[in-house]
Amino acid sequence: MECTSLWRTTAHQKLLALAQHPYDLTAPGALLADDRLARYRCSSAMLRLHYATQRVDDRVLDALQELADELALVEQFRKMRRGAVMNRIVGQESENRQVLHTACRDLFHAEPAAPAATAQAREQLARLQTFLADLGSGRLDNGRGESFTTLINIGIGGSDLGPRSILEALRSDMLPDRQVHCIANVDPDDAARVLGGVHLPTTLVSIVSKSGTTLETLTNEELVRAALVRAGLEPSRHCIAVTGANSPMDDPERYLACFHMYDSIGGRFSSSSMVGMVMLAFALGYERAVAFLRGAATVDREAEGADIRGNLPLLLALIGIWNHNYLGYPTLAVLPYSQALHRFPAHLQQCDMESNGKSCDRLGHPVAGPTGPVLWGEPGTNGQHAFYQLLHQGTEIVPVEFIGFHHSQYGVDLEVQGSTSQQKLLANLYAQMVALATGQQSANPNRVFPGNRPSSLLLGRQLTPEVMGALLAVYEAKIVFQGFAWNINSFDQEGVQLGKRLASRFLAAMAGSPSGVDSLTETFLTKMAESP
Amino acid sequence: MECTSLWRTTAHQKLLALAQHPYDLTAPGALLADDRLARYRCSSAMLRLHYATQRVDDRVLDALQELADELALVEQFRKMRRGAVMNRIVGQESENRQVLHTACRDLFHAEPAAPAATAQAREQLARLQTFLADLGSGRLDNGRGESFTTLINIGIGGSDLGPRSILEALRSDMLPDRQVHCIANVDPDDAARVLGGVHLPTTLVSIVSKSGTTLETLTNEELVRAALVRAGLEPSRHCIAVTGANSPMDDPERYLACFHMYDSIGGRFSSSSMVGMVMLAFALGYERAVAFLRGAATVDREAEGADIRGNLPLLLALIGIWNHNYLGYPTLAVLPYSQALHRFPAHLQQCDMESNGKSCDRLGHPVAGPTGPVLWGEPGTNGQHAFYQLLHQGTEIVPVEFIGFHHSQYGVDLEVQGSTSQQKLLANLYAQMVALATGQQSANPNRVFPGNRPSSLLLGRQLTPEVMGALLAVYEAKIVFQGFAWNINSFDQEGVQLGKRLASRFLAAMAGSPSGVDSLTETFLTKMAESP
Repeated sequence: MECTSLWRTTAHQKLLALAQHPYDLTAPGALLADDRLARYRCSSAMLRLHYATQRVDDRVLDALQELADELALVEQFRKMRRGAVMNRIVGQESENRQVLHTACRDLFHAEPAAPAATAQAREQLARLQTFLADLGSGRLDNGRGESFTTLINIGIGGSDLGPRSILEALRSDMLPDRQVHCIANVDPDDAARVLGGVHLPTTLVSIVSKSGTTLETLTNEELVRAALVRAGLEPSRHCIAVTGANSPMDDPERYLACFHMYDSIGGRFSSSSMVGMVMLAFALGYERAVAFLRGAATVDREAEGADIRGNLPLLLALIGIWNHNYLGYPTLAVLPYSQALHRFPAHLQQCDMESNGKSCDRLGHPVAGPTGPVLWGEPGTNGQHAFYQLLHQGTEIVPVEFIGFHHSQYGVDLEVQGSTSQQKLLANLYAQMVALATGQQSANPNRVFPGNRPSSLLLGRQLTPEVMGALLAVYEAKIVFQGFAWNINSFDQEGVQLGKRLASRFLAAMAGSPSGVDSLTETFLTKMAESP
Repeated sequence: MECTSLWRTTAHQKLLALAQHPYDLTAPGALLADDRLARYRCSSAMLRLHYATQRVDDRVLDALQELADELALVEQFRKMRRGAVMNRIVGQESENRQVLHTACRDLFHAEPAAPAATAQAREQLARLQTFLADLGSGRLDNGRGESFTTLINIGIGGSDLGPRSILEALRSDMLPDRQVHCIANVDPDDAARVLGGVHLPTTLVSIVSKSGTTLETLTNEELVRAALVRAGLEPSRHCIAVTGANSPMDDPERYLACFHMYDSIGGRFSSSSMVGMVMLAFALGYERAVAFLRGAATVDREAEGADIRGNLPLLLALIGIWNHNYLGYPTLAVLPYSQALHRFPAHLQQCDMESNGKSCDRLGHPVAGPTGPVLWGEPGTNGQHAFYQLLHQGTEIVPVEFIGFHHSQYGVDLEVQGSTSQQKLLANLYAQMVALATGQQSANPNRVFPGNRPSSLLLGRQLTPEVMGALLAVYEAKIVFQGFAWNINSFDQEGVQLGKRLASRFLAAMAGSPSGVDSLTETFLTKMAESP
């Protein structure tokens, strides 16, 4: 399959022309025209995308469909799911790997798309299930007859943000006797704070690193192992490893158990592999963690539909491209109206920006226009009392992806001033969509809202484990589709290497390296050290 | 004083010309030239700004000095601190208020800049000190002879993000027997989660709302009062209010104590008023909370210096303007290399974007160019394993403000592979500054780093309460200086009103309003309700 980029398509020219006159959401009746609120919805099994408040019309959607077809976006996704080597740069040294995070959850269908990878995933899941059953039955305890009640997850980036944000989202589903904490930062205060708040004798420590060599993670592992020893405990009875088979960490002598991840799964896409599942299944119980996988698997199959109006992640991807490449908006805000999702934007920030923050295409050429946007976000309604001022009246226009649910998780609510909190939450969410779109005229220039600020809404019934899986898979597929459209490799991260190399140089200098230090490093350290 | 905007200055034309050829950080030896690393530092009492990795040279700094002088930025700041009515739009209905958050901490000098406002602040602080002493001595207990050990803060936006991020930053300084939780979101799950984890009989609840009418906050107050009643407790013995004098919440019948805030202090600038101090002094003890104020007060005075090379917040503001208005970068990342500051970017996001996300200037005219940028950030090193890929190799260029400290807070550290965690943290921080600036050439196009991505570093010795106060005041002053330069009113928030009004309309419709519902609201609700 010869891939090209959106800038070389026929549809690109059409979209450039259409972007000269995008749909005017501020015109009287604009949101009600052509049954727009009903027609600009896209349903999947557990989520619905409402996009009538985007600056699109049927001509734009038709052109985006053409773009998707010309670029073979769905065909590429199908090949990815079936094991094509998508993680590469043609003609250059590159990772040259399959991309099979979807195989980890392709468990609910008689014929998985990538049978070998799914068989590996099943094997790891079976081992996890046995391990958890042994914890539950007491067959596996701390050697003093006490059960493990607490898990500390040590990982960073892909081994932290995804699982942590999902766990935060599903805290209402946690087993009552389980606690989970996370250590990510090499800042020693991160570990100190967590260690100060746990009972070590009943604590498991899961160390997560695909390579088994991530410096931050190994350092935090040593900090925690030292704390275990100080507490008179034997670390190998408390530590488990999630790592690549045969990595330096794949060592049953040092770990109570070792679960495996594979080269075909990148860190930022690893939440549904053992990286996420060890933590989630410990916290939620095995069955609810599997429900999370089921939700993701459902979306993965839906994402193979050719019609963009019926393929939710593909449509979300294309609307994103419309806003970013054609209307010229450099950032994207993801704003969940759900406190449980408070860390989900941080995970998406990683997953999106590390995947698509690229300037070299899959053929080794410079890209011809903007690739991944800056993604950021915080939960509403909190954000309304913070940065929404800029969304409404600032000079930077920020497209918004709202996320919301009809029902709360805990169901504890109260009517105040005639409405429940959940009603207030949804009323605010809907109001923001309308306000951003329609704006407001006023004789007071400081009270003018220009409107035409695009947004869409991913709406679900309730944030359950299965819906969380669906939500994650929607965004993972969206990011992959956008990478295909820009013809970039969304699965490597060469951009992190230079910093690592320079950090080693600074560390060597700090440690008084005998082999000498270059003058920039030395001068830099000197000038920093003189600070107050 | 007749104020103008940067677009109307002579310096503006010079800066436009200079921006055609900004300093090339990728040239060989560029970081070492002209003793740049030593000369491009700006010291304040507790923090130093390192800005050699910005794309500035002496000509740019001279032009920025001219800009500051032409716009009378320091003179405006001095007038603000002395009680000028800075919160207004000339010729339009507007708030017409003084801006005196600096007066809350102007306690350490014989002649405060705004004596009346500082006297008010002193009075409230004295009341708080007595209240806390009564809690400590047991004079004020829960009526069952037990001390209050827990505080729940209920507030949103300015009554939440600032105090919460500061408390998170200073958790290592908390009194050992005190706990603090926060409820902000109208999402009922936010309150449910907090209430599930506290012992109500020994819990104080601080409700924070200047107007006494913030819907989210009142709703959460009712949820918590109902929980207190269910637990057999008398709410008026557990609830305290932080509110404007004579607001509906200023009611000793319903509250154990009422502390006051004033119209001259906007929500997002209220962390050093009673809004922040009640929570901080409960958590840290009164003395350490006062140390926080002392740090802020020191910076406020330093910010009156006329030389931009010696006025840290002013220089930070002007470099931000150089990057945003002249080099054209639409966002700003604030990246603390300190896990304790993990919520500080969220507070700055509020403080900056709500202040300066404006399109109407102080004369009621449309602004002539970009005002406040999109601000976002997460702590390093975590971010290095997440979105830094885009910072290094993406098509969107993001200026960065790093924050770091020489020493950790807890001092619990370990040498692993020849260096401590704190050394690794700083090495990574320095390495990122160099990598972003210098870039890297490579024969592999996927390993090319273009460089010339600007950053600076605010570096301190250790994050103590006093340094936290200084850090907050640096950013508050920076935001104010930028607003002056754009000639906008940084102290109102008209942009939040439309959403509020439309939310009321949606709520009325949900409650089956008898007065009829407009067709957009009705159709919108219908189409949303049909979701899965």
